[in-house]
Amino acid sequence: MGLKMDAEALAAFMARAFPQVAGDFVVERVAPMEITVRMEVSDRHLRPGDTVSGPTLFSLADVAVYLAVLSMIGPQALAVTTNCSMDFMRKPAPGADLRAEARLLKLGRVLAVGDVLIYSDGVEAPVARATLTYSIPPARG
Amino acid sequence: MGLKMDAEALAAFMARAFPQVAGDFVVERVAPMEITVRMEVSDRHLRPGDTVSGPTLFSLADVAVYLAVLSMIGPQALAVTTNCSMDFMRKPAPGADLRAEARLLKLGRVLAVGDVLIYSDGVEAPVARATLTYSIPPARG
Amino acid sequence: MGLKMDAEALAAFMARAFPQVAGDFVVERVAPMEITVRMEVSDRHLRPGDTVSGPTLFSLADVAVYLAVLSMIGPQALAVTTNCSMDFMRKPAPGADLRAEARLLKLGRVLAVGDVLIYSDGVEAPVARATLTYSIPPARG
Amino acid sequence: MGLKMDAEALAAFMARAFPQVAGDFVVERVAPMEITVRMEVSDRHLRPGDTVSGPTLFSLADVAVYLAVLSMIGPQALAVTTNCSMDFMRKPAPGADLRAEARLLKLGRVLAVGDVLIYSDGVEAPVARATLTYSIPPARG
Repeated sequence: MGLKMDAEALAAFMARAFPQVAGDFVVERVAPMEITVRMEVSDRHLRPGDTVSGPTLFSLADVAVYLAVLSMIGPQALAVTTNCSMDFMRKPAPGADLRAEARLLKLGRVLAVGDVLIYSDGVEAPVARATLTYSIPPARG
Repeated sequence: MGLKMDAEALAAFMARAFPQVAGDFVVERVAPMEITVRMEVSDRHLRPGDTVSGPTLFSLADVAVYLAVLSMIGPQALAVTTNCSMDFMRKPAPGADLRAEARLLKLGRVLAVGDVLIYSDGVEAPVARATLTYSIPPARG
Repeated sequence: MGLKMDAEALAAFMARAFPQVAGDFVVERVAPMEITVRMEVSDRHLRPGDTVSGPTLFSLADVAVYLAVLSMIGPQALAVTTNCSMDFMRKPAPGADLRAEARLLKLGRVLAVGDVLIYSDGVEAPVARATLTYSIPPARG
Repeated sequence: MGLKMDAEALAAFMARAFPQVAGDFVVERVAPMEITVRMEVSDRHLRPGDTVSGPTLFSLADVAVYLAVLSMIGPQALAVTTNCSMDFMRKPAPGADLRAEARLLKLGRVLAVGDVLIYSDGVEAPVARATLTYSIPPARG
């Protein structure tokens, strides 16, 4: 299957549909069933000890898989997250940006499953991993 | 085991340690191994369709289990989330507050496990569930 | 909603559909959206140190939620597990039976979600917890 | 870090410690932080519709990450699974063997995290994925 939305189309969709958060995320690369999304970390994403908050890491994982799904099925879909599992493995570097590398493992008629590794600039090993399931509404034609 | 922190002590701790988000959460009830935390939903927690965002639900689940752990071991602990699984089951009511009912299933020397049901005011069945694992640092005495 | 299958009907279904494992499980109690399933632990379920194997605990959690779903929608359904999260919290007692207490948190048109606490006879706190999602095939009428 | 156990050493350990199930698994390849484990599927692993049972897929994922951990820390460790999340994405081919490709994402002092893709011979896309956390006992020197 080919891409229905490229990085530019995904960015335009985000700006329109999620104006509150769209500015946080940049699609670095998108390919069939794969995406890389960068997140600029600012003060409001931090917690004591200058660590990135859990909800911030969750939101990046969620957005990355969401955009990977949309890149394949197009902007009309009201996909919703139904399940997430996430492991927080290392402390992200304080002021560093985050990078999510997501791949879709399944893109079915009803459910899509993607997993994500999140990297913190300057830390070689991933700081977190997540798997998300999206429910795809029937009228996706 | 008894409580080391009551609702008031937990609120004071939150205000001190997490000033950015402490105002969102109210500890309604705390008992040994159990807590109820209420979250006032405001515009910045919403997504298109007036639904509550996934990261908002995640942050409530995370805070509820975190405070349940602290209520048992005291404020000195730098517990960090190591794992989360979460199911998003129903759409929360648009303007309604959220209520998390959490219980600790395990409070070990190294790991604590708690699960949470999240309710949206006016919806009888839970809108989400989560299980979180916290790693407890050695020096908790 | 009421029950479409009681304990006897569930046992008959298991014996017919899953003859290899049906003998391991006994439905102790079934009520709308709730079930208790007992598992007799035998030598082949054990691991070194006389502990119950992870796959054994998984199979009990899986069967308990599966039977809870069937009790509500009837035996015609080819429900399949799509997701499981599980926490192994304590060591079960060596020779003791296991008891799974499951409840359905959601029984939708397409997905059902149930969670389970597993107890080991003689240990007060749960030894494991799990949440399972089942995909329900369209033709369930 | 280098390997403390190669494929042969892992097989010998399995035969000694898990005689009931060791025969099901073959370590095809082991490298630092990575392992491939093959499982021969026999009748007792099947379910109605000639599909491989969930507990069978779980046991393969569990063994693969367990052996990956042991390959790095040696046979003396009594590592136990503390958490698992698993997605069942496609039906395995009936008579076909299974292949688990696991990698360790974290190998800490206390916790190890690994994820696994499970393939069924003759099906290109993975049939299941899992992430497992192992707790590593203190005396691992």
